[in-house]
Amino acid sequence: MQNFVYANPTKIFFGKDQVNNLGKEIKNFASKILLVYGGKSIKENGVYDKVISQLNNYKIEFHELPGVVANPRISLVEKGVEICRLHDADLVLGVGGGSVIDTAKTIAASVKFNGKPWELFTKSMPINEALPIAAVLTTAATGSESNNCAVITNWERQEKRMISSEVLYPKFSILDPQITYTMLPSQTVFGGIDIIVHILEQYFHNDSFTPIQDGFCETLLKTVINNLPIVLKNGRNYNARANIMWASTLALNGILSTGVLSDWATHAIGQEISAIYDIPHGESLAMVWPSWAMYVYTNNCKRFKQYAVNVWDLSESNKNDSDIALEGIKITKNFFDQLKAEAQINPLQLKVKDEDIELMAKKATENGPIGNFKKLYKEDVMTILRRSF
Amino acid sequence: MQNFVYANPTKIFFGKDQVNNLGKEIKNFASKILLVYGGKSIKENGVYDKVISQLNNYKIEFHELPGVVANPRISLVEKGVEICRLHDADLVLGVGGGSVIDTAKTIAASVKFNGKPWELFTKSMPINEALPIAAVLTTAATGSESNNCAVITNWERQEKRMISSEVLYPKFSILDPQITYTMLPSQTVFGGIDIIVHILEQYFHNDSFTPIQDGFCETLLKTVINNLPIVLKNGRNYNARANIMWASTLALNGILSTGVLSDWATHAIGQEISAIYDIPHGESLAMVWPSWAMYVYTNNCKRFKQYAVNVWDLSESNKNDSDIALEGIKITKNFFDQLKAEAQINPLQLKVKDEDIELMAKKATENGPIGNFKKLYKEDVMTILRRSF
Repeated sequence: MQNFVYANPTKIFFGKDQVNNLGKEIKNFASKILLVYGGKSIKENGVYDKVISQLNNYKIEFHELPGVVANPRISLVEKGVEICRLHDADLVLGVGGGSVIDTAKTIAASVKFNGKPWELFTKSMPINEALPIAAVLTTAATGSESNNCAVITNWERQEKRMISSEVLYPKFSILDPQITYTMLPSQTVFGGIDIIVHILEQYFHNDSFTPIQDGFCETLLKTVINNLPIVLKNGRNYNARANIMWASTLALNGILSTGVLSDWATHAIGQEISAIYDIPHGESLAMVWPSWAMYVYTNNCKRFKQYAVNVWDLSESNKNDSDIALEGIKITKNFFDQLKAEAQINPLQLKVKDEDIELMAKKATENGPIGNFKKLYKEDVMTILRRSF
Repeated sequence: MQNFVYANPTKIFFGKDQVNNLGKEIKNFASKILLVYGGKSIKENGVYDKVISQLNNYKIEFHELPGVVANPRISLVEKGVEICRLHDADLVLGVGGGSVIDTAKTIAASVKFNGKPWELFTKSMPINEALPIAAVLTTAATGSESNNCAVITNWERQEKRMISSEVLYPKFSILDPQITYTMLPSQTVFGGIDIIVHILEQYFHNDSFTPIQDGFCETLLKTVINNLPIVLKNGRNYNARANIMWASTLALNGILSTGVLSDWATHAIGQEISAIYDIPHGESLAMVWPSWAMYVYTNNCKRFKQYAVNVWDLSESNKNDSDIALEGIKITKNFFDQLKAEAQINPLQLKVKDEDIELMAKKATENGPIGNFKKLYKEDVMTILRRSF
């Protein structure tokens, strides 16, 4: 096991009607806030009204920033920073999924920063200060509700980049599985794939003697794999929604990567695809992960075998490690495909130019090789990308 | 899954030589501290010297309170409070196992309290303030290094009681598995049993649809069960020590009980035994858990069957649930017995009077029935106690 430092101060309110704690909790930090959200979905499913009524009941002054979209834009962050400064907001509340929370986080850090928000992503400087951040989560996917990262896209530059800092942990997050009842089937599927790939990024490492990390990853993977088909049939199954939602938080709150060297190559590559083609994050991961796995599995066949046996219950008898490893990759790809079919997601019709392949691979590796399970250079990434489309 | 609130702000420094971070971290909170520890073991194994050198290097003024023993005493807490007040200490650092850290926590809360420290344990009032607490852990057992509880004994009253509060989370804890190389075999065994029973208290509940909590518990149980025999053979096996140490923290940092109603009857009963007979905490749990399990298993046979199959790999074929459940209990008791034999721990020769049985049962249930897996009243506890000795 490798040395590590682990801390996660975010307070989680999980379960039915936990939004009733919103006003009281905000009052511990602020009386004036910026309220960040996406579009009409939270107005249709009643979450917006519940949030506003909490803010009014606790006499919390709020200013609104709607309009967050998937692969959230730095341009909207700039607008949010202006509003915060104009009204002296003391906290940024995101009501939505990962894109909304990432936008809220970036605004919170940018308000305390003397410069253009995008510089936080391009200049490698520590982020030491941010307004307090809070979240009401409406999707199960990114884990942003309980971690220290934010991913933002600069559409003009076709770049999608990440920041991370201790000050980006939300002070608290509210997770009510009932709120996810109205997620679209496609959101449920791409959110689920995002959760699965988050876990896989941390599961595929070359450290040994890590039974706790392995068991936790395998538990979460099986939970998501077993429950996704259930919620696709019945979106209002509370226990299935609850298990997926809690898995999504645990998948990326830092606990799985304690003591191991995680990979993250699939995310690095998927991010470049989303930055150019604006496709859902989960969709890019579903494309890249199987190609990544096929490209790297011989590096540590035993690890892929363990995955196939412990997560997918594949039988070991009469097969060599390599065969079982391949079966595990194949069954994962099939599972992603089945989920997409179940949710009636149309196959992507991307026209990918070869120069784009090279551009994406170049950007993905601009700070050196990516991945830890196997180090990948530009040529490796180009091969994986070609096999992903 | 039940609603829950989860937060754990303790920062964990885990791994080889992490004590090198001690001085720098303390400086974030304090320049004058109280240093709490037990006896000679930290002087013999070199930990004391490393701590002192960190304190000196960072010019941190420190005042010492040695003398913490197992089942730590409220009388020593009173001494610590005096020293803190006399020297205006800003932080209480415990260097030791659970008894030391619990003593440090209780001192930290008592310094901010206008009254006798024991009143914190007897009057049910919230604890809203405490000095910052930090720990250098020397044993794998109680989980106190990353939770909000402290257990202290009032020897005059033969009472062992617990406090808990958000302000009792250590600001940070340093966990170096190498430091546990010199634990006595008996400490390793009783610490290991403590970890196992912590997990069992949270595993045996009557909630359903809890695959994450179940899988995490089963993973930690198997990790401890597999690694304890290894460290009893070779105390200096880093990976085995590391896995046990990380399991001990995760076993009681709150993550396992999210969404379930834990039991804690075994601890409530074991605590009364330790309060009267001053035996190690782990020893009392090894006595009580099998008797508790035999008394309650028919309440939810399926749960005990899951335990037997998933943790102990017992075969299901040709057996009914009740038989497998019983096998699981038996194998647990045998495992505890084998560990004690391996560590050459002499069997207890307690002379238990029947009036003591009644007194312990009365005290254990003085605030109402205990346990959630099955509610236990005084008569139930008396039966379990009679079968424990």
